[in-house]
Amino acid sequence: MLSKDTQLCISMSGNPSNIGTRFHNRLYDELGLDYVYKAFSPPDLEQAVAGIRGLPIRGAAVSMPFKEQVIPMLDRLDESAKAIDSVNTIVNDDGVLTGYNTDYSAVASLLASHGVPTDLTIAVRGSGGMGKAVVAACRDTGFTRGTVVARNVDTGRALAEQYGWEHSREVPEGTRVLVNVTPLGMAGGDREGQLSFTEAEIDAADWIVDVVAKPSETPLIAAARERGKSVITGAEVIALQAAEQFVLYTGVRPTDEQTRAASEFSRSKA
Amino acid sequence: MLSKDTQLCISMSGNPSNIGTRFHNRLYDELGLDYVYKAFSPPDLEQAVAGIRGLPIRGAAVSMPFKEQVIPMLDRLDESAKAIDSVNTIVNDDGVLTGYNTDYSAVASLLASHGVPTDLTIAVRGSGGMGKAVVAACRDTGFTRGTVVARNVDTGRALAEQYGWEHSREVPEGTRVLVNVTPLGMAGGDREGQLSFTEAEIDAADWIVDVVAKPSETPLIAAARERGKSVITGAEVIALQAAEQFVLYTGVRPTDEQTRAASEFSRSKA
Repeated sequence: MLSKDTQLCISMSGNPSNIGTRFHNRLYDELGLDYVYKAFSPPDLEQAVAGIRGLPIRGAAVSMPFKEQVIPMLDRLDESAKAIDSVNTIVNDDGVLTGYNTDYSAVASLLASHGVPTDLTIAVRGSGGMGKAVVAACRDTGFTRGTVVARNVDTGRALAEQYGWEHSREVPEGTRVLVNVTPLGMAGGDREGQLSFTEAEIDAADWIVDVVAKPSETPLIAAARERGKSVITGAEVIALQAAEQFVLYTGVRPTDEQTRAASEFSRSKA
Repeated sequence: MLSKDTQLCISMSGNPSNIGTRFHNRLYDELGLDYVYKAFSPPDLEQAVAGIRGLPIRGAAVSMPFKEQVIPMLDRLDESAKAIDSVNTIVNDDGVLTGYNTDYSAVASLLASHGVPTDLTIAVRGSGGMGKAVVAACRDTGFTRGTVVARNVDTGRALAEQYGWEHSREVPEGTRVLVNVTPLGMAGGDREGQLSFTEAEIDAADWIVDVVAKPSETPLIAAARERGKSVITGAEVIALQAAEQFVLYTGVRPTDEQTRAASEFSRSKA
């Protein structure tokens, strides 16, 4: 039962899903925390951010198209958001709003914890909002050289240049780490079932990373597993970035098993 | 389980209780409405109201000390709020914020539905924020003459003059309708157990009205019932004003029995 002392956390997105609402509320229940989470699609971002301060609201996830727009409305940027000029999390400490980017920190953390060797050649396919977080995380984990693969020459080249990488329309031959940040293979869209790299490209690689989280076994991940490649899945990325948000909001760190179960629950019917 | 489509309603108060949170959430559950309600104590009213527009939030209860302060931040005032320059309810229709006063409308409605004869002499004890709603409701139901009883001469006289009534420090002899809008008799405060009118005043009256809702049987109501007087209780006032808010937010009118049960529940542990 909610009370006057219950803390509210929210998400702000142009096109909200139920994933965050289900993930966070499930963990609040499980851990007995007096919090509640609810997704919003703000008609006016500036007024929504005023409401975070004015009500107050403890924390907010930020999704497209607000991740860059929100920056001037905040008081501070954490290094994770500064690194890519993109905020996916706001924390309100007594009226002081700090922007974080847990997509960036989750990808960096997974590359390190899986021990992906940073002397391998790497290619990231995609140059959208998540592309920036992923390329920056790769570079900052040690991949000082790499290739942004994008059919859109303008955004692909800009992203590559920003982080000192190359841009190409094709995956360079013999690339050993393949990272997909396009919607290819995402359930429910017109790209469902599509493979984001060719079988030959997968054959040649050692590591396959996908940020598509639904289904948790994308065509890319399935093809990589069949071939015995090492993988980092989109389900891992989304679970870790959500867990980091959870820690920032509540100060409580769920166990890996609690995070995994809540993440699976959140994606199961959302 | 909350979803992205769940509508949020809130309260804004300097000193929030759990009564509204319990009343509304209980009725949402019972009626199967996809709403959630949560109390706030806003550090910045203007930013909180921006948040109502910006997130958006469907509706907000407004308590002390915000009832007058909030008026310039709204787009429209309903007649109920205009009558007393005091808002206790905000409804957000696609970004257009309208202020209502359901305290005023609930008291007016109860005087009419109980059939309190408006040719009787009437005295209202108290001249605070709720005093204005009650005196205006009495006058607008037909009590064109009456007495504001208040030890504070300044606020008592100002309130009386605003509505064409008299001010007095004592209840005029032989007054037939007695209305208490002071905290006298309220549970939990230093006025607990106190009678807001003398036994002689109660003996002389036909109708006794109390806006104190906790306990639901105040010393005044108990003394009136013992003497066989007609009564309107604070529990009736608070239940009806909350039910009116509920209708404004959801468009659904709970039955009298549902309202009574939710109101009793809301006051039982709050």
